[in-house]
Amino acid sequence: MAAAVAIGERGRGRTAPNPSVGCLIIKRGRIVGAGWTQPGGRPHAEAMALAEAGTKARGATAYVTLEPCAHRSLRGPPCAELLAEAGIARIVVAVGDPDPRTDGRGLDRLRAAGIEVVVGAGAAEAERSLAGFLSRVRLGRPFVTLKLAMSLDGKIALPSGESRWITGEDSRAHVHGERARADMIIVGRGTYEADKPRLDVRLPGLEPWSPRRALLTRGEGVAEWHRLGSPAAIFDLADVNDLFVEGGSGAASAFLQADLVDRLLIYRAPILIGDGKQSIGYIGLTSIAEAHRRWRLADSRMLGIDRLEVYERDRL
Amino acid sequence: MAAAVAIGERGRGRTAPNPSVGCLIIKRGRIVGAGWTQPGGRPHAEAMALAEAGTKARGATAYVTLEPCAHRSLRGPPCAELLAEAGIARIVVAVGDPDPRTDGRGLDRLRAAGIEVVVGAGAAEAERSLAGFLSRVRLGRPFVTLKLAMSLDGKIALPSGESRWITGEDSRAHVHGERARADMIIVGRGTYEADKPRLDVRLPGLEPWSPRRALLTRGEGVAEWHRLGSPAAIFDLADVNDLFVEGGSGAASAFLQADLVDRLLIYRAPILIGDGKQSIGYIGLTSIAEAHRRWRLADSRMLGIDRLEVYERDRL
Repeated sequence: MAAAVAIGERGRGRTAPNPSVGCLIIKRGRIVGAGWTQPGGRPHAEAMALAEAGTKARGATAYVTLEPCAHRSLRGPPCAELLAEAGIARIVVAVGDPDPRTDGRGLDRLRAAGIEVVVGAGAAEAERSLAGFLSRVRLGRPFVTLKLAMSLDGKIALPSGESRWITGEDSRAHVHGERARADMIIVGRGTYEADKPRLDVRLPGLEPWSPRRALLTRGEGVAEWHRLGSPAAIFDLADVNDLFVEGGSGAASAFLQADLVDRLLIYRAPILIGDGKQSIGYIGLTSIAEAHRRWRLADSRMLGIDRLEVYERDRL
Repeated sequence: MAAAVAIGERGRGRTAPNPSVGCLIIKRGRIVGAGWTQPGGRPHAEAMALAEAGTKARGATAYVTLEPCAHRSLRGPPCAELLAEAGIARIVVAVGDPDPRTDGRGLDRLRAAGIEVVVGAGAAEAERSLAGFLSRVRLGRPFVTLKLAMSLDGKIALPSGESRWITGEDSRAHVHGERARADMIIVGRGTYEADKPRLDVRLPGLEPWSPRRALLTRGEGVAEWHRLGSPAAIFDLADVNDLFVEGGSGAASAFLQADLVDRLLIYRAPILIGDGKQSIGYIGLTSIAEAHRRWRLADSRMLGIDRLEVYERDRL
């Protein structure tokens, strides 16, 4: 399933509001078909993988990161039907699809066709990869990642505003990879005015993955940028699975205060700045105890001499 | 040599101005004697180890973290002489002793006695363990460790001053271990007034390792505490090998601005605070570029859910 998740990641950032699913078809220990959701959301991963497998799909096992769809669309037949017609013998599904048009009906249809169905393998990884889609269906809003790039003492710039460069090239390249996975990227007015940032994906071959740009402001918007009046306005973003909050301190604090951050990326350079701009401002805390048990470390790695830490909001 | 360094650490914090040395005597693959510098600085590690080994020292190999002394003292004969008299056949020394009374003469004397001498094994570890003594002899001042305990965003307290507890029990216990290795611990006036800290070592059995306390202040001192008018006053501390700067922001910034911090301990809890007290203030930076290439990561480990990072000042 890890391989199916990796395949599904290829479409990430270009399939919203659809999920970016991965599908592998295995026969006698060999991959005979691999597919992922195509830009715009169709064809689905299963249709792509079946097309590649052709007649080899008969009697094969399919690994899919999300429950195959059960609903007929103008853009194609339900994947559950396609899998049955192709003669798939066994299917391993990581996560059920909470979309009310499917929500278990995909699995029912597969079982009704005599296919052996296994659910839950690799669920944690698949949930992470599909977090945006799942958040949209379950909570009615995108999955929100907040990026912070800071010094050891938590500063994002000198008092003068100088911030180039706190983190190194490896960290900045990693940020571009994260941008590519997002459907929309948002900054606050201060960052917009100071940097006029392009916020595009500057990684060879990944330029088409540059996300739509948005400005968080109570004031006027800017041309070609989406405008959000407040963090709560993300509930109106029907076609955004993954939202990337890239700066600055004001936007970060607003999303944190609204408790609308699901994942934190902290890129930390081995430098001390001292007086300077703090990474986040008021987030509504009244005691230290309140701050605890909110963030769980999900990943930690070196990027050159910087360290990246990934935290996930612990909502249990 | 790693074992000899570990043995030497036992005396650390109670031998200043003498170094805390470790000595192991090995014969046919077995430890026949182990010694470390005793409180107050005498007897030396070699004398302790030889006393334990007795006649088994004849023909044995000695591992010593620092070059054995060559000077006669009222408190005992030179260790180089003791080793030769005991019939040690081979000696492995990690680091030469820069003390002008020894400085190579210990090794000369061992060689003159027909002992095989090897120098440099485990030097990096031994240099770390002996850093305070070496700094005092080479630079005329203690080795300075700065401790910072902070949130992910670099804060050490809420705006109200509330700081209990940002870091967890494991981190706090680790701090007590670090205090035990220091000869003196210093805080600024703000921390003194706010916390009236005991700054003692609250680890079972290590209470006698509680270091002397000092206050960094331009104003009046307090009873039973040493007073330092400025970070530069550490050059007058003739009997302190290891100085531990424990807080708060003002003291930390003053030592950093004077470039008198050799080692940083950052205990970081997985919480966000936002508005609050910053860990360090003005440290004299005029550009981001200046901040780079000063700190090298020496260790990183989890302490419960907190992370400890140890950085060393890169003075190359």
